[in-house]
Amino acid sequence: MSRFFITASNIFGGMAYLSKEDADHIKVLRIRKGEIFTVCDGNGTDYTCRLSDNDGEDLCVEIVDKTPSPGEPNVKCSVFAAFSKGDKLESVIQKSVELGASEIVAFPSKRCVSKPEGVSLLRKTERWQKIAKEAAKQSERGIVPLVSVMPTYENAVKKAAEAELPIFCYEEEKSHSLKAALEQAGEIKTVSIFTGPEGGFEPSEAALAVQYGMKSVTLGPRILRCETAPVSVLSAVMLFTDNM
Amino acid sequence: MSRFFITASNIFGGMAYLSKEDADHIKVLRIRKGEIFTVCDGNGTDYTCRLSDNDGEDLCVEIVDKTPSPGEPNVKCSVFAAFSKGDKLESVIQKSVELGASEIVAFPSKRCVSKPEGVSLLRKTERWQKIAKEAAKQSERGIVPLVSVMPTYENAVKKAAEAELPIFCYEEEKSHSLKAALEQAGEIKTVSIFTGPEGGFEPSEAALAVQYGMKSVTLGPRILRCETAPVSVLSAVMLFTDNM
Repeated sequence: MSRFFITASNIFGGMAYLSKEDADHIKVLRIRKGEIFTVCDGNGTDYTCRLSDNDGEDLCVEIVDKTPSPGEPNVKCSVFAAFSKGDKLESVIQKSVELGASEIVAFPSKRCVSKPEGVSLLRKTERWQKIAKEAAKQSERGIVPLVSVMPTYENAVKKAAEAELPIFCYEEEKSHSLKAALEQAGEIKTVSIFTGPEGGFEPSEAALAVQYGMKSVTLGPRILRCETAPVSVLSAVMLFTDNM
Repeated sequence: MSRFFITASNIFGGMAYLSKEDADHIKVLRIRKGEIFTVCDGNGTDYTCRLSDNDGEDLCVEIVDKTPSPGEPNVKCSVFAAFSKGDKLESVIQKSVELGASEIVAFPSKRCVSKPEGVSLLRKTERWQKIAKEAAKQSERGIVPLVSVMPTYENAVKKAAEAELPIFCYEEEKSHSLKAALEQAGEIKTVSIFTGPEGGFEPSEAALAVQYGMKSVTLGPRILRCETAPVSVLSAVMLFTDNM
């Protein structure tokens, strides 16, 4: 069913108030008078709405049902991905949202070839958030995961380390596996997945992460691309926690 | 370490014989006389070789060590992906090879928007095999997974159903989860992962797959894109079977 995210404050009195942009999109999708579609408040609640007239201006539709969004996992996974070249981060954001990430955080690290700053970073972040919203609509999420940027590597590590299971994906780690880390963690409600740029992390960066309490893990004997690792680990976490 | 795939017949008498193309690549990588690199026979054996002279013609190098390729999982995963639009299949092939797939099979299905045929398909298949080879080098695989094309949907189903655990990823499946299918299967050596095009499978296609013995599974409440599903399921299978 077609899906629209609107701010919770635009849902009241048994009605949902949609923007002109959404009204236009409803026309493009050829949704007709009397047909139903889903409006989501972005806080995990879905509203089934019935279209009355759509004159192409701001649109007010009747709410006929209200349910918790079925697309939300019961574990909050934050994906921390280092800046990477080209549009790789766009792909990571899109796929992470589809797979149930609660947020995506981009950060600089020593071997990053691309380190966007200033206006360029601002524009990128806007674009990334748009990609997250589109992916949330398409994959039927109950929230639009936030895309944010950390100014320094250490800030990113600190924030990631707040999760109950902070996973540091490290090419030079040979002994601790992702599965062992998941098994040892037991019942968890928050996970962070921390992955590096094209050239991987520097040993000093790995040391800092461990110092802050992150769990350094290997992703096995095959070298994964920087845009593959977060998607792969997120899938593994979703399977392990029965959210897939 | 730099990695080159050569045919097994070019390894004999304690020496490995590389093509001019590989010799040129060795120059580009600035590998110098006396330095070592890996030659893989594509059958799961790695040879550590030492460079003597590299005059840019066919190259003969001394083998100094021989070990099983560490990058091979102990379960054979065949990824069956329906034809999809644009370069999505290229991404599926690249990521599947990185994640340890043993082969990738493309096939037509009813809702495929793109159904390449004839010369166009031939060119695409050549390109796909090249992508698989590059991904195998980069991710340090011990084989170059074969990319093939099935002429009909039914042929693809028949071939996929030969695996001990043939997983049919179906949007309309609501009860059987991927994890349950993996748990029920127990110790397995062969898996096939079967995923649809942009619009998903038709009910009649799902019925045929089940008739041939495939296990229809849901990938959870979120709708995955056709290029995300195989990568996600392969990651989950690799975690579950301790190959990640």
